[in-house]
Amino acid sequence: MKTLITGGTVVSATGRTPADVLVDGETIAAVLAPGSTLLGFDLAAHVDRVIDATGKYVIPGGVDAHTHMELPFGGTAASDTFETGTRAAAWGGTTTIVDFAVQRAGERVMDGLAAWHDKAAGQCAVDYAFHQIVGGVDDDSLKAMEGLVAEGVTSYKLFMAYPGVFYADDAQIVRAMQKAADLGLLTMMHAENGPAIDVLAAQLVEQGKADPYFHGIARAWQLEEEATHRAIMLADLTNAPLYVVHVSAKQAVQQLAWARDNGKNVFGETCPQYLYLSLEEQLGAPGFEGAKWVCSTPLRSRAEGHQDHMWQALRTNDLQMVSTDHCPFCMKGQKELGLADFRAIPNGIGSVEHRMDLMYQGVVTGQITLERWVELTSTTPARMFGLYGRKGVIAPGADADVVVYDPAGHTSIGVGEGRTHHMHMDHSAWEGFEVDGHVDVVLSRGTVVVDDAGYHGRAGHGRYLRRDLSQYLV
Amino acid sequence: MKTLITGGTVVSATGRTPADVLVDGETIAAVLAPGSTLLGFDLAAHVDRVIDATGKYVIPGGVDAHTHMELPFGGTAASDTFETGTRAAAWGGTTTIVDFAVQRAGERVMDGLAAWHDKAAGQCAVDYAFHQIVGGVDDDSLKAMEGLVAEGVTSYKLFMAYPGVFYADDAQIVRAMQKAADLGLLTMMHAENGPAIDVLAAQLVEQGKADPYFHGIARAWQLEEEATHRAIMLADLTNAPLYVVHVSAKQAVQQLAWARDNGKNVFGETCPQYLYLSLEEQLGAPGFEGAKWVCSTPLRSRAEGHQDHMWQALRTNDLQMVSTDHCPFCMKGQKELGLADFRAIPNGIGSVEHRMDLMYQGVVTGQITLERWVELTSTTPARMFGLYGRKGVIAPGADADVVVYDPAGHTSIGVGEGRTHHMHMDHSAWEGFEVDGHVDVVLSRGTVVVDDAGYHGRAGHGRYLRRDLSQYLV
Amino acid sequence: MKTLITGGTVVSATGRTPADVLVDGETIAAVLAPGSTLLGFDLAAHVDRVIDATGKYVIPGGVDAHTHMELPFGGTAASDTFETGTRAAAWGGTTTIVDFAVQRAGERVMDGLAAWHDKAAGQCAVDYAFHQIVGGVDDDSLKAMEGLVAEGVTSYKLFMAYPGVFYADDAQIVRAMQKAADLGLLTMMHAENGPAIDVLAAQLVEQGKADPYFHGIARAWQLEEEATHRAIMLADLTNAPLYVVHVSAKQAVQQLAWARDNGKNVFGETCPQYLYLSLEEQLGAPGFEGAKWVCSTPLRSRAEGHQDHMWQALRTNDLQMVSTDHCPFCMKGQKELGLADFRAIPNGIGSVEHRMDLMYQGVVTGQITLERWVELTSTTPARMFGLYGRKGVIAPGADADVVVYDPAGHTSIGVGEGRTHHMHMDHSAWEGFEVDGHVDVVLSRGTVVVDDAGYHGRAGHGRYLRRDLSQYLV
Amino acid sequence: MKTLITGGTVVSATGRTPADVLVDGETIAAVLAPGSTLLGFDLAAHVDRVIDATGKYVIPGGVDAHTHMELPFGGTAASDTFETGTRAAAWGGTTTIVDFAVQRAGERVMDGLAAWHDKAAGQCAVDYAFHQIVGGVDDDSLKAMEGLVAEGVTSYKLFMAYPGVFYADDAQIVRAMQKAADLGLLTMMHAENGPAIDVLAAQLVEQGKADPYFHGIARAWQLEEEATHRAIMLADLTNAPLYVVHVSAKQAVQQLAWARDNGKNVFGETCPQYLYLSLEEQLGAPGFEGAKWVCSTPLRSRAEGHQDHMWQALRTNDLQMVSTDHCPFCMKGQKELGLADFRAIPNGIGSVEHRMDLMYQGVVTGQITLERWVELTSTTPARMFGLYGRKGVIAPGADADVVVYDPAGHTSIGVGEGRTHHMHMDHSAWEGFEVDGHVDVVLSRGTVVVDDAGYHGRAGHGRYLRRDLSQYLV
Repeated sequence: MKTLITGGTVVSATGRTPADVLVDGETIAAVLAPGSTLLGFDLAAHVDRVIDATGKYVIPGGVDAHTHMELPFGGTAASDTFETGTRAAAWGGTTTIVDFAVQRAGERVMDGLAAWHDKAAGQCAVDYAFHQIVGGVDDDSLKAMEGLVAEGVTSYKLFMAYPGVFYADDAQIVRAMQKAADLGLLTMMHAENGPAIDVLAAQLVEQGKADPYFHGIARAWQLEEEATHRAIMLADLTNAPLYVVHVSAKQAVQQLAWARDNGKNVFGETCPQYLYLSLEEQLGAPGFEGAKWVCSTPLRSRAEGHQDHMWQALRTNDLQMVSTDHCPFCMKGQKELGLADFRAIPNGIGSVEHRMDLMYQGVVTGQITLERWVELTSTTPARMFGLYGRKGVIAPGADADVVVYDPAGHTSIGVGEGRTHHMHMDHSAWEGFEVDGHVDVVLSRGTVVVDDAGYHGRAGHGRYLRRDLSQYLV
Repeated sequence: MKTLITGGTVVSATGRTPADVLVDGETIAAVLAPGSTLLGFDLAAHVDRVIDATGKYVIPGGVDAHTHMELPFGGTAASDTFETGTRAAAWGGTTTIVDFAVQRAGERVMDGLAAWHDKAAGQCAVDYAFHQIVGGVDDDSLKAMEGLVAEGVTSYKLFMAYPGVFYADDAQIVRAMQKAADLGLLTMMHAENGPAIDVLAAQLVEQGKADPYFHGIARAWQLEEEATHRAIMLADLTNAPLYVVHVSAKQAVQQLAWARDNGKNVFGETCPQYLYLSLEEQLGAPGFEGAKWVCSTPLRSRAEGHQDHMWQALRTNDLQMVSTDHCPFCMKGQKELGLADFRAIPNGIGSVEHRMDLMYQGVVTGQITLERWVELTSTTPARMFGLYGRKGVIAPGADADVVVYDPAGHTSIGVGEGRTHHMHMDHSAWEGFEVDGHVDVVLSRGTVVVDDAGYHGRAGHGRYLRRDLSQYLV
Repeated sequence: MKTLITGGTVVSATGRTPADVLVDGETIAAVLAPGSTLLGFDLAAHVDRVIDATGKYVIPGGVDAHTHMELPFGGTAASDTFETGTRAAAWGGTTTIVDFAVQRAGERVMDGLAAWHDKAAGQCAVDYAFHQIVGGVDDDSLKAMEGLVAEGVTSYKLFMAYPGVFYADDAQIVRAMQKAADLGLLTMMHAENGPAIDVLAAQLVEQGKADPYFHGIARAWQLEEEATHRAIMLADLTNAPLYVVHVSAKQAVQQLAWARDNGKNVFGETCPQYLYLSLEEQLGAPGFEGAKWVCSTPLRSRAEGHQDHMWQALRTNDLQMVSTDHCPFCMKGQKELGLADFRAIPNGIGSVEHRMDLMYQGVVTGQITLERWVELTSTTPARMFGLYGRKGVIAPGADADVVVYDPAGHTSIGVGEGRTHHMHMDHSAWEGFEVDGHVDVVLSRGTVVVDDAGYHGRAGHGRYLRRDLSQYLV
Repeated sequence: MKTLITGGTVVSATGRTPADVLVDGETIAAVLAPGSTLLGFDLAAHVDRVIDATGKYVIPGGVDAHTHMELPFGGTAASDTFETGTRAAAWGGTTTIVDFAVQRAGERVMDGLAAWHDKAAGQCAVDYAFHQIVGGVDDDSLKAMEGLVAEGVTSYKLFMAYPGVFYADDAQIVRAMQKAADLGLLTMMHAENGPAIDVLAAQLVEQGKADPYFHGIARAWQLEEEATHRAIMLADLTNAPLYVVHVSAKQAVQQLAWARDNGKNVFGETCPQYLYLSLEEQLGAPGFEGAKWVCSTPLRSRAEGHQDHMWQALRTNDLQMVSTDHCPFCMKGQKELGLADFRAIPNGIGSVEHRMDLMYQGVVTGQITLERWVELTSTTPARMFGLYGRKGVIAPGADADVVVYDPAGHTSIGVGEGRTHHMHMDHSAWEGFEVDGHVDVVLSRGTVVVDDAGYHGRAGHGRYLRRDLSQYLV
């Protein structure tokens, strides 16, 4: 199958250029000056399909480096399977996800990884890879980390939150970071002081403050800032590069900036919810409505200016990329578990389908440049997690994961009248959001999986990606 | 003229990929998967020349955004003409220079620009553009700034140093920055507190401390830090983006980092001399030898750690790019003007030929990545100064300014036995430097100007580049 | 004359203690445990007067280290003479002022000092000392600085504002600071970037923005912050201790804090107006009313939080003391000079009478402790400016400058019904302020100058104080 | 008993003044102008003893707010009893100690306090008070904290180090700080990340790095800095004032400075060992010699500049006071427990006798002023811990704890020839230190306990001090 994408503007992390893109099989064969000919050779005549991208952006497919399909959590499980979740991703222009395999205390790391392979194999619409959650750091799991690189898993995650579930204490963190530094694994950190949060949360519930809003109060910004600083210092101690997930507090960003100004290999992602949504408006919605937006780290106060600071940090590169932390739960039967106590609400928001659109809206409103959009959503995620070359770039030899994005199009998100999404949820956390752009065509490894006519993908098209070590470290 | 560069590894600011590059006329026609064929079409058979880049890096030609060819200074003039200077640039893999046209107090800006066009026209081996020095801010020159964009001059420079020569006081700076903010011009700043420096310098000479070493003492780091902070605040006041030239003090970098952490459009360049050379070793060389390295800002103390901090800042992006501030003077008849008084030594070092090599050595020693090398020396300079698309990238449609760089090659810099350089100087500031790499082939707009057989360029090949507004602002 | 003050609580910078104070002649003879006897010796029987301070605070008389009596400014002169100004000071519990002798460019320093001696001699109700303004730094004035210490003038002031009037450029500042460092003189700095301010002010007036409010807009916080940083760095360069006057911008405080955290001898004062009044409320009052509060540095925006930050800085010792910058002008015939152009409004507010009360109100509202009140208004000013021992402390041997302050009293400030002040002004900048405390008795060198019966002082009682070098440096 | 101290210079935290001090019974009756007479009354004739302090400093007795007499630790106990330890304190001019009562997990707080009262009662040469260690935070101990203020114990200590011994996790810290904030108790924190330290220490020993030197390596500065930041943030979260004990890392000081610049009630002490001794010189002494200086936090690297920064922080008030953390162990039978493994060396250094002298030496060498010496060693400790008025000041009504200090005297510390100390130790951590000053006379509550003739004190003279809430908070 040969495809020529003509007339568009190819956008990279550093610039934009009018160019045609030739796809041959699963990979990009060439990027060419516009015109469909090369040294007199008529390219269009030799391909199976020509996609007209006139007036549109041609960008590398999105890489969402933080999803949790089918994650067991709080007595239920994230409502998107790998099948439904990756299909929604494809709809939204994301052609790679990196999900989290889970090991818990008492379990074996490689069993956790195998279990996640089982969940995903043959189910995915687009390519996928894994990080490894190490939820129980001990001699066995440390030993098991040595095998991860060979499995193509070059990053793992620790939790400073959730005591009794995924929590690692500082002794465990030090040991894991030492091992990671030796192996070249990138340490991902959920940076919130869980033991302190649990004290505050219990006190709030005792005081009858059990509504979703108090989820945000219990998880005070001080406890994200503190854990971020602690993670930075433990990383400094052990010479381990550090990647902090779902940063939402401006003070946490200031800690990251401080570390980076001192030359440390410290990185951070934020998520669309921390750019657009707030403690007051969403978590504080009347009744139990706020449960839709219960996630951790929590939505922050707009009055305190966190959202503006996240956008700024994306511009200044104090944060390097945007993932979704996609972890959807339905209200019915899932979020409702916490009707009487916010602590029982499953934590998570579903956004895997909307990340490319929501971030493009930041281009429209002048928060970021077009190039930075591509860098934040595709190029840097690919580099950060060892996928660059195959993913994250429009270049010969790269996987033909290509999105044709129409700046003249429009997208209305939600479940209401005239709105749409494809995630397995009974609501949308983004209900009513309007995006001044549209994902027109999506290719995954050379195959058109989405176009005007709709979805053409299939479960099992997506392949497992063995990742290299991070290509982003300096 | 059609050229195919085969077998190499194309390196961009974000990654590297094995790819062939097809040049058709003056521009790049395509970047293709290796193999010299496309959909069965034999490219090699249809080109005039095939360059074998096997085992080598194929990179965008260097962009040196800070040179001073033929600059009148201190009663003499920089020893490289546009002819000799751009030829040396070509030898070193730099295919674009941005030089400074000069207006002084009492002169007209457009006269200065015209004069520099006269100097350069028909002389250059590679393409060139101009910044405008506004050495006398007044109603006339402010008015004249309005015409610069149309001339393709989208940046201008002010001096906080050199009272009586180029010096602008704070009132002038505010007025110029206001104008620049309106017009979209990028303000470049020589950030040293000149009035304070002149007091210290005069006192030192009075005390008989007239050797080149005391040039570095008079220009204390406090006075670079101070001016940098002042420039940042005046830029903040006027909403003007700011670009600080030749940053050499770590405390100045800290000011830039602070501004950027606060979301300001503040940028900085450093130069190879501030990465490799020092106050103690070079400026403090016996006798008058140190005069070779008299430049401003001065070389800094290695004991204080400035050099290491400059490398760090290049990694952390607290500094964005590397220029040379190429401003060569011979010892004989030029530097010697200051035998009795360091203040009379013409300020400047010649490096235009060596920047690509010297920075590549930073890759060899692990200071920066291969991608960052390309970003610092070509991609960001092009973006910063409105040349991206034509320069700074290997992409279809771009000018075919391409360098084939051999990581297995070697370069010995200097005027001694077995050493070489091509700048018009009677010495080398880089005598004895060894680089574990070599510029093999250089194309300027599709023409091979340097290869194994030597220099094939000609004065007049280089064209004036009208620059767009900066493409780097966020 | 022997006086015993009994039953009160003596408050110092570090604590409070119930104690009697015995005054013998002009000095304090003893501080004693309460009871009026010592080893059986009946003190009350041996003194001329007993002052009952039961339930009241006994504190060292206030030291206002920043006043401008009779200062010629903008074609007029400050409306308080040394006679009226020091009388008002006495009413308000301030028993020492340090005023500024003035030298301007072209004048001789010692002539300026002599002129101020002439103005003050025989006029003052309380003791007085001088700082020296060096408004024209040149060889002569630098030489003259050498004589200041012998005159008891151990501090001098430079202006980074007011070009053409008092302005010193950076070369002049460096030279003066070098001299001061040699001599042990403390450099006081008016830290605002005058040249930049003048550009903005002229532009505003051109745009028809000539109301008093725009005085505050022209003097942007960036220009105070910048000048503060610059002064800090020039002081660092020259090893000169630095004292920044009338700090009003929180960002300027942050610069001072940064310098102090780095071990520099850098100090700052603020004034009551920067603690209580604001750009929006006072400078922005309807019509020309705002002229009453035109002073430099200007009142700052409350929305930006400067006032709260000044209180905080007084608590954290990032600012060390509170002076008034007393420089009163009547509306009639003085402030009105700027009816058409805020630049012509004489700069200054009259507060010398109210400082002790206004700062005590900060104790009442919990902003500062009782001890900090004494420290900020008396002890530190005395130490900072070489008066400690004689002033600033209740201790044997000290001048008997003592205030009995009644925390159960009340003071209503203003010119309206039931309100009062004693400064030579046709209005009050503090109209309507209520203070929950009252200056009951004031002794100046052992003489009761104010008590319930009113004012008992006289012009000429106050003596000139030769000051020692600062006792506050570390 | 009435005593008159004549002819000396009374030094306070803010200044010095020639004055006589009259002691009547246990308290100071008056501070008087020199001359021994008052209103003609001949004081000398009415007292029992006249102490001639001509040429000497008269200062408030030292307050050492951090001692551990008889502390059980690591299977042994600190070698000074309250009897020997307070006697040594008296010899050295310290007339008040605040020791730590201990509660461990599973024990009752009030039992711990009672046990310490039993140890101290009738044994002390000088007055003493207690802080409470809460080594096991649970519902019972939190409840018990409510009774501490009534017992005169207004501060308590938590440990972020020593897991399994005194360690409090973050949940416990939050709960304790909340309680303390309610009660007005001052939280004292041992800020080192114990769990991380224990990992490093075990690894070092496994690697055969078991010498005392590695005690300092295991307790890396990063882990003090981290814990300090964490304590600050948890204090911010709970509105609890915070006092960090034995600060030794410059980076920890920077955290404290940052918190204070932001207006937080955060304080820190350092100890003489962190000012004078180092990792390289003392901990790194040959063989097992370094064990003498095993304490926690550890001695820091001189090459990294911690010692100089501690002195600076004392000048800038980023640290507020100096205690000893007196916790002596003999080499024989105690330190030797760790011959094979540094983890088994009892942690502690004995300095209670030398603090006043060692800090005075900082006056001699210009590190601090004479006034700051008094402030750091007596006035601030008294204010910080609710003893001011009785202790920490020479003022009428205060306990007559007075030291006559001779700046012309000399003190040679150690156990070698011509050297001396009085602590119960078989060595001295300060062997060979020479101090250019001498404690001549020491009064404790009006009784001369040390003079030229030697020690005149007795076990049981010292009384328990019920402390008020901290008088230092703002």
